[in-house]
Amino acid sequence: MSGINLKKLSQELGLSISSVSKALRDSYEISAETKKRVLAMAEKLNYQPNPFARGLRKNKSTTIAVVIPEIANNFFALAIDGIQLVAQKKGYHVLTYLTHEDFQNEESTIKHLQGGRVDGVLISLCGDTASVKHLIDLHQTGVPIVFFDRVPETMECPTVTTDDYESGFKATEHLILAGCKKIAYLCVSGFLSTTQKRMMGYEAALEKYKIVFDPKMVIQCSNDNIANVALLRKLLARKNRPDGIFASVEKLAISTYYASNEIKLKIPQQLKVISFSNLRTASLLSPSLSTITQPAFEIGKESAELLFRMIEKKTFGNRIDRVVLKSSLIERNSSVKK
Amino acid sequence: MSGINLKKLSQELGLSISSVSKALRDSYEISAETKKRVLAMAEKLNYQPNPFARGLRKNKSTTIAVVIPEIANNFFALAIDGIQLVAQKKGYHVLTYLTHEDFQNEESTIKHLQGGRVDGVLISLCGDTASVKHLIDLHQTGVPIVFFDRVPETMECPTVTTDDYESGFKATEHLILAGCKKIAYLCVSGFLSTTQKRMMGYEAALEKYKIVFDPKMVIQCSNDNIANVALLRKLLARKNRPDGIFASVEKLAISTYYASNEIKLKIPQQLKVISFSNLRTASLLSPSLSTITQPAFEIGKESAELLFRMIEKKTFGNRIDRVVLKSSLIERNSSVKK
Repeated sequence: MSGINLKKLSQELGLSISSVSKALRDSYEISAETKKRVLAMAEKLNYQPNPFARGLRKNKSTTIAVVIPEIANNFFALAIDGIQLVAQKKGYHVLTYLTHEDFQNEESTIKHLQGGRVDGVLISLCGDTASVKHLIDLHQTGVPIVFFDRVPETMECPTVTTDDYESGFKATEHLILAGCKKIAYLCVSGFLSTTQKRMMGYEAALEKYKIVFDPKMVIQCSNDNIANVALLRKLLARKNRPDGIFASVEKLAISTYYASNEIKLKIPQQLKVISFSNLRTASLLSPSLSTITQPAFEIGKESAELLFRMIEKKTFGNRIDRVVLKSSLIERNSSVKK
Repeated sequence: MSGINLKKLSQELGLSISSVSKALRDSYEISAETKKRVLAMAEKLNYQPNPFARGLRKNKSTTIAVVIPEIANNFFALAIDGIQLVAQKKGYHVLTYLTHEDFQNEESTIKHLQGGRVDGVLISLCGDTASVKHLIDLHQTGVPIVFFDRVPETMECPTVTTDDYESGFKATEHLILAGCKKIAYLCVSGFLSTTQKRMMGYEAALEKYKIVFDPKMVIQCSNDNIANVALLRKLLARKNRPDGIFASVEKLAISTYYASNEIKLKIPQQLKVISFSNLRTASLLSPSLSTITQPAFEIGKESAELLFRMIEKKTFGNRIDRVVLKSSLIERNSSVKK
């Protein structure tokens, strides 16, 4: 942290530190001519105010944090794109934290965000998060929080989600209408709001078509791709195997493809697949993958805009926004009727 | 930025601010008993030191910046995973900036990193970067910089790259041995070190097999996927079209697949394709995509480790590390010999 500071700048100008500081803040106490001279020298010497001094003075960090489970995932990558767009326009810096679906990572990250490091937090919960005490603690220190996609049911904070229940219903109905009778539901964690709502939609669709819900058809996978492929290979090789797969997370559809290839199970002839996914290659896969595609970029953008309204205190009273955006079902060959 | 600060903490304890501050810093001036009492209360009230006050005092931000062209790209997503792993272990925060291949974004981002916001910078240059003056300015203020993947030729900073020349040579030779006679080279920007080195490998392979280099076979694409598909469709529909494509960037291979599908050009029968790529779906595409796969996670990890050695002043003298990691050529169906 060397470079040009206020002291060096004032030495160069032959002015007091306080005058230079006032000139830079456009104070009425300083003449227009002096201001011009100070700005010219600041530009010439490439002076940048110390963000820590400024942060202390203004009680503002001009920084937000984004806390997400993983980044090698098209949904989160696109959401970050949307968040960055808004932050950049506002002149804000973005700290990114990956929890890798581990609660302890999430908890310690949130604890470190107390004390003024950030002016606000955008978070999508990790699969392990059963309690949100750490987030309530942060919120009580006055830091605004917006949840997106994976949200808690029990906190009075704004949320941006998609129509997970309806999407789960439509995906399952789509498989039933394509002829499936034994549909497995793949998920990563039972704690997640997305897992639960998509599964409620799945159950409701089964009920509508009088298919008995079988808890053994709810397959909880892990964060380990290789273990997931092994688990699915076993599931798909057994006698009473499913004839349809509804994956609530993109990577589980990819693992389903790998597992099916390994045991030479043909998609869609022997197994139909649909998945939540933002893969750009979905239509290029063999066979092309039917998807529920979330407006990931818009989710990021909308969440960031909500957060900045709170940071700038442009929200009124006790209003808590719950934005729900629509996903699209895109039929492709992986779920086509025989 | 409300919550528990040093003042409130000392009021609760009935001690002076200076005593509490000293106790928290484990000063010898404070008794063990008082220290214990202060720590217990700090824990109870969930006190977190103000990072800006600490930053000013210690002249350290415990923050690094990662500046990359885009995030919805498997290479950069995996590299960030590697960077985050190291940063987390060091107790550091990571600011992420996306330049979207736009030089002005990169320049203004780097300018904002002066003045102590970060202790170090990891950067992969954007496609537009013809001059690195902004980075030289930052470096001269004492901020350590490590470049990865896309690096400048003219700066005395450590770099972490892959064997781009050799990989370009091998990819081109692979297409020639599969029977290609007119190989197009797809790239995003002529300024990039990666573009240039991969192309030098491409030219060297053509020369080895006595194929005349044709500048019209070097196709400069843009950052716009839709425009790229249109450009490639035109290239592939023309009479004297290429029979092989070497894509230096993953998204250009995806665009090649889209363009070929649209004009019903069969891969690999009529067109062979190989690409730099970290797609998890490469082997599931129709046809499966031959790739040059970079060790993206390791590149991120290695770059971050180098940066922390510089931040912790564990580098000696004028040593400048230039780490080169190896990529792998993975043959799949998109380039198989007829």
